[in-house]
Amino acid sequence: MIQAGVVGATGYAGAELCRILSGHPQVELAAISSVSFEGKALSEVYPAYFHMCDLVCGTEEQVVEKSDVIFAALPHGLSQELAAKCWAAGKVFIDLGADFRLESEEEYKEWYENSFTHPELHKEAVYGLPELFREKIQGKKLIANPGCYTTAVPLALAPALRKGYIEKEGIIADCKSGVTGAGRKPTQGNHYPELNESFTAYKVAAHRHTPEMEQTLSHIADSPVKLTFVPHLLPVNRGILATCYARLKEGVTMEMLREAYEEAYGGEYFIRLLKAGQVANIKNVRYSNFCDISLHMDQRTGTFIAVSAIDNMVKGAAGQAVQNMNLAFGLEETTGLKLFPPAF
Amino acid sequence: MIQAGVVGATGYAGAELCRILSGHPQVELAAISSVSFEGKALSEVYPAYFHMCDLVCGTEEQVVEKSDVIFAALPHGLSQELAAKCWAAGKVFIDLGADFRLESEEEYKEWYENSFTHPELHKEAVYGLPELFREKIQGKKLIANPGCYTTAVPLALAPALRKGYIEKEGIIADCKSGVTGAGRKPTQGNHYPELNESFTAYKVAAHRHTPEMEQTLSHIADSPVKLTFVPHLLPVNRGILATCYARLKEGVTMEMLREAYEEAYGGEYFIRLLKAGQVANIKNVRYSNFCDISLHMDQRTGTFIAVSAIDNMVKGAAGQAVQNMNLAFGLEETTGLKLFPPAF
Amino acid sequence: MIQAGVVGATGYAGAELCRILSGHPQVELAAISSVSFEGKALSEVYPAYFHMCDLVCGTEEQVVEKSDVIFAALPHGLSQELAAKCWAAGKVFIDLGADFRLESEEEYKEWYENSFTHPELHKEAVYGLPELFREKIQGKKLIANPGCYTTAVPLALAPALRKGYIEKEGIIADCKSGVTGAGRKPTQGNHYPELNESFTAYKVAAHRHTPEMEQTLSHIADSPVKLTFVPHLLPVNRGILATCYARLKEGVTMEMLREAYEEAYGGEYFIRLLKAGQVANIKNVRYSNFCDISLHMDQRTGTFIAVSAIDNMVKGAAGQAVQNMNLAFGLEETTGLKLFPPAF
Amino acid sequence: MIQAGVVGATGYAGAELCRILSGHPQVELAAISSVSFEGKALSEVYPAYFHMCDLVCGTEEQVVEKSDVIFAALPHGLSQELAAKCWAAGKVFIDLGADFRLESEEEYKEWYENSFTHPELHKEAVYGLPELFREKIQGKKLIANPGCYTTAVPLALAPALRKGYIEKEGIIADCKSGVTGAGRKPTQGNHYPELNESFTAYKVAAHRHTPEMEQTLSHIADSPVKLTFVPHLLPVNRGILATCYARLKEGVTMEMLREAYEEAYGGEYFIRLLKAGQVANIKNVRYSNFCDISLHMDQRTGTFIAVSAIDNMVKGAAGQAVQNMNLAFGLEETTGLKLFPPAF
Repeated sequence: MIQAGVVGATGYAGAELCRILSGHPQVELAAISSVSFEGKALSEVYPAYFHMCDLVCGTEEQVVEKSDVIFAALPHGLSQELAAKCWAAGKVFIDLGADFRLESEEEYKEWYENSFTHPELHKEAVYGLPELFREKIQGKKLIANPGCYTTAVPLALAPALRKGYIEKEGIIADCKSGVTGAGRKPTQGNHYPELNESFTAYKVAAHRHTPEMEQTLSHIADSPVKLTFVPHLLPVNRGILATCYARLKEGVTMEMLREAYEEAYGGEYFIRLLKAGQVANIKNVRYSNFCDISLHMDQRTGTFIAVSAIDNMVKGAAGQAVQNMNLAFGLEETTGLKLFPPAF
Repeated sequence: MIQAGVVGATGYAGAELCRILSGHPQVELAAISSVSFEGKALSEVYPAYFHMCDLVCGTEEQVVEKSDVIFAALPHGLSQELAAKCWAAGKVFIDLGADFRLESEEEYKEWYENSFTHPELHKEAVYGLPELFREKIQGKKLIANPGCYTTAVPLALAPALRKGYIEKEGIIADCKSGVTGAGRKPTQGNHYPELNESFTAYKVAAHRHTPEMEQTLSHIADSPVKLTFVPHLLPVNRGILATCYARLKEGVTMEMLREAYEEAYGGEYFIRLLKAGQVANIKNVRYSNFCDISLHMDQRTGTFIAVSAIDNMVKGAAGQAVQNMNLAFGLEETTGLKLFPPAF
Repeated sequence: MIQAGVVGATGYAGAELCRILSGHPQVELAAISSVSFEGKALSEVYPAYFHMCDLVCGTEEQVVEKSDVIFAALPHGLSQELAAKCWAAGKVFIDLGADFRLESEEEYKEWYENSFTHPELHKEAVYGLPELFREKIQGKKLIANPGCYTTAVPLALAPALRKGYIEKEGIIADCKSGVTGAGRKPTQGNHYPELNESFTAYKVAAHRHTPEMEQTLSHIADSPVKLTFVPHLLPVNRGILATCYARLKEGVTMEMLREAYEEAYGGEYFIRLLKAGQVANIKNVRYSNFCDISLHMDQRTGTFIAVSAIDNMVKGAAGQAVQNMNLAFGLEETTGLKLFPPAF
Repeated sequence: MIQAGVVGATGYAGAELCRILSGHPQVELAAISSVSFEGKALSEVYPAYFHMCDLVCGTEEQVVEKSDVIFAALPHGLSQELAAKCWAAGKVFIDLGADFRLESEEEYKEWYENSFTHPELHKEAVYGLPELFREKIQGKKLIANPGCYTTAVPLALAPALRKGYIEKEGIIADCKSGVTGAGRKPTQGNHYPELNESFTAYKVAAHRHTPEMEQTLSHIADSPVKLTFVPHLLPVNRGILATCYARLKEGVTMEMLREAYEEAYGGEYFIRLLKAGQVANIKNVRYSNFCDISLHMDQRTGTFIAVSAIDNMVKGAAGQAVQNMNLAFGLEETTGLKLFPPAF
């Protein structure tokens, strides 16, 4: 049994990790930590977990010591030091934060106002989006788990971009996220009476996930890609819907596009390519590691539209982290992740 | 592997059954049927099930033929004929409808305007509330699965009633249910804009679950019990919260009550008796087979208050049906049912 | 024009007051104050108010100086000093907090852990539930505006109690409130992902509104009344539904009850007595000053059930405060309050 | 007093019209009709209206006879005949449906599969978007009231387009609508358990409002404009948020854009141009006739982003219809429409 530990277990991503790891047949949840709730059981913070996960929060040190793999669900900026400790101890480290996602320190400085404190580790880090970079992840010890938007948008666009079916200029990602993406800490904006029956955009064309998406898409296109990214906040708990727009190259047909996506994703367990006439819906992927993708075309304007839906807490965070763990340890990639999304 | 079939698979309870059975290690979902969607895959009706359960709906006959156990999730009145077929074929039949729940044909006629078409079968039927009537269910072939309210209320009151700690007169069950309890068929009242931001009582002191609760509580008390039952409709998908009030007998203390509940439920996997200071919440049992119960007392007025929470679709329908199947087949009762409720 | 001022204008009740007063034909909103947002426009705190109420928050002193009537929407305990200032200045003072609601200092101490700092003022204060105590309110200068639960429950029970149709013992008020009742300040419990799809009881038989309801009902019954009160929190913004249970006296019929309510409320603009077969619903009173009441009976158990619905922020707070202002100033009671509840 | 009538009063737009007209100081709601509910009071269909609007539904003929202005809230295709009757009788006719919105019969045939049965009337019809075409509406007798999306999108883009600050090619309107836009009739998709916690796009690049928006924008640009329009369905009752993307022309700055919008909308009561740093939110315009607009720019990609928010049932339907009535009758345009949006 792999001994797994979670640092930052009482945040939403951490709690979801504990839930998913509890159902993994080859994992034992060995230790968890939380700065805010040290000494308290996870089930005191989340009464839903009562009798299912009554593990008590310890310290980061205890987690590192007891675990073969350490998942970190920490605020940005706090993972580098921990990564170094895990690396030194020969442990696998999977970071759900942003510290190791960007390859360029310059961009990291610009968007996160932070620097690479352990540049040598950044060279070891791999970007954990398995459907696009699987070979690079297998057997690795330092994995940067992508953010939620940065999973949904590249998966929606990659096959069309790789084939050169869409223009690299003028891509637009209009995304809508459930509230859990903003974390467990109460804020005025996420106070129930203020968010309920509300809908708005935020950080318009200024969200930190922008350079991360561009990095992924540039790798796929093998040349620089820029995009316009506008996130919105949905009054629902879970889910991200990404509506992505790109100009079609001359002569590209729906058949060519569909074929490209079938080729890219036909063998992927976690990607469900929807049939013509269907549209991806966050409802259908909740509590699962699926990414649903539907393809559309506006022939009147020559626009390609790809809609993707994920559960921001599963494929957009904890589920994908476990998928990466499976790759790192050489397990079958879907182990513990065949989560059946409920109908309602 | 037990071959299981679901008649009425495209209704909410039926669909939930298919999801839960798909995760049961000793069951194969052999066949499903639906009058409205014959010939269609379940995943066409519920796109969430795409790739997870693409079974095609056949006929009732096919289900009976292919299955060792038949679950029926049908409108009231349609189960008796099917039960007779299953009985004749030697199959286990678990009815999620109301046809076999009431022992008294008179009450059945009064509340359901229907009669016992197969009186001999009604003698064979057992009432499937395992935490109260486990021994009667084991190894049986015709099981009437309780309704949702009728699971939540008796579980909340049984230990106090059995010990004679509360008066049998004047019991009040003020219950609040999520919308899935009303089924898949769209109605004006459950149209999104009409139900959203709404809350009301319905069938005030006139709901069909009343005699069923009274039957259970009368068995527990070993003498006739009547209660006032008022259901309300909550703008949420899943869950029932039952707030039950009863007059305390002289001299009964909180310690005595708590001890009675520990004694009754301490060994029950699916009942979580909450600690003092906590209150049962539907959020904490969603997507699980748990029944959370919290105990309270109004010393100023001598009133006992028990609050119970279940997921109406799991412990209140499909989950409990599988629990009954486990009992019927002699399996460990929790097999396939250790469902971990998500934190959000 | 009456010059009106609001102290604590940026809380939910204060903001709602500003909105309602802005539509009152005989009132000018002269000044508002807020400790947290002094110097900021109300529309900066609530962007919905942009161009409609851009008044800047000043100090409490400024409000008292500029206003003929001062509404206080302050946390409990802060109103007594302010009331004294207003009284000294000859102004009308309407308190939306609890400081002047309880007549007994002993009960105030027990439930609020506070004492009467100005006992002489408490003698002047009247309890502002117009439908029950109208004559006492007219022309008065110090009015204690009832809380939300304490409006909904007494209005539901008063006519039956006054006529002696129900027992004074064993009354149960099972109430369900929208989230705005808990105020503007974000908390873990009201964080969107935690409250959404949730439902629970809180402060079971221990809520501060209990003695206030008992005080009102005791006045109506002209002898001490105790009741069991259990509040619940609904995942909706606005509304309170009170489901009230009482034992019927022998021989009381539905006709007698209905007649008693018609007699008591037939002339009340703000009380809508629903027809037989209908049930009060919070949806139907949102954004209005109405209290809808429906009457029911469980003949099997001899139980009277009255269901009332109000908008907790209007009839349960700001609207009723304006109604009291109208009475204090000798205006037609409905002035500025004929608010039409939307259908959706 | 203007005698007003509503044909199709029991649909959502019709009911909202009745509510708004009831508060209009120069209007008397003279008659209403409904095919489905003839002979029933509007308050039987919408219990929220009890005591506020108990008018009984009559026939279309009665409405035409008793009214000076007839509002039609009918399914597409049913307004032409009624318009002819009103025209013949010299009445003002305001159509909330689509029959008179498109100038080109060809487009009407393509998108609505219907033809112009009274071509001479189509020549008389004016398009009732007052902020863009006010002069054409004043004093007119046949007004086509725009749809909801077709109000939100053109208002968001018109000033930039008129000034030539954005490219006419490649405009994208990613829109999100509340559920009331889909009407009162229950459907599977809008059944509460299916829509709650869901979010998806629908009619991707194939919605009937597309040619209507293009018609308006082409008038503004004085040359053909095409756009890509993707609507989404939000799990909220009211509101439309339109996120509009367009490529900026060389040298255009945020200052120039802001100035253009100030110039266009500075004097418009119903348009609130938000300050820099704010983003339009459907919450802030609910129950009001406001259109909030915020302006944004993605300098990295040269993209202009305008976000607009309206209440789909008010500025997107009933409120705008009354605004058009005011223009038709020479009243002050804001009469009866200074609706104060609640904070929550």
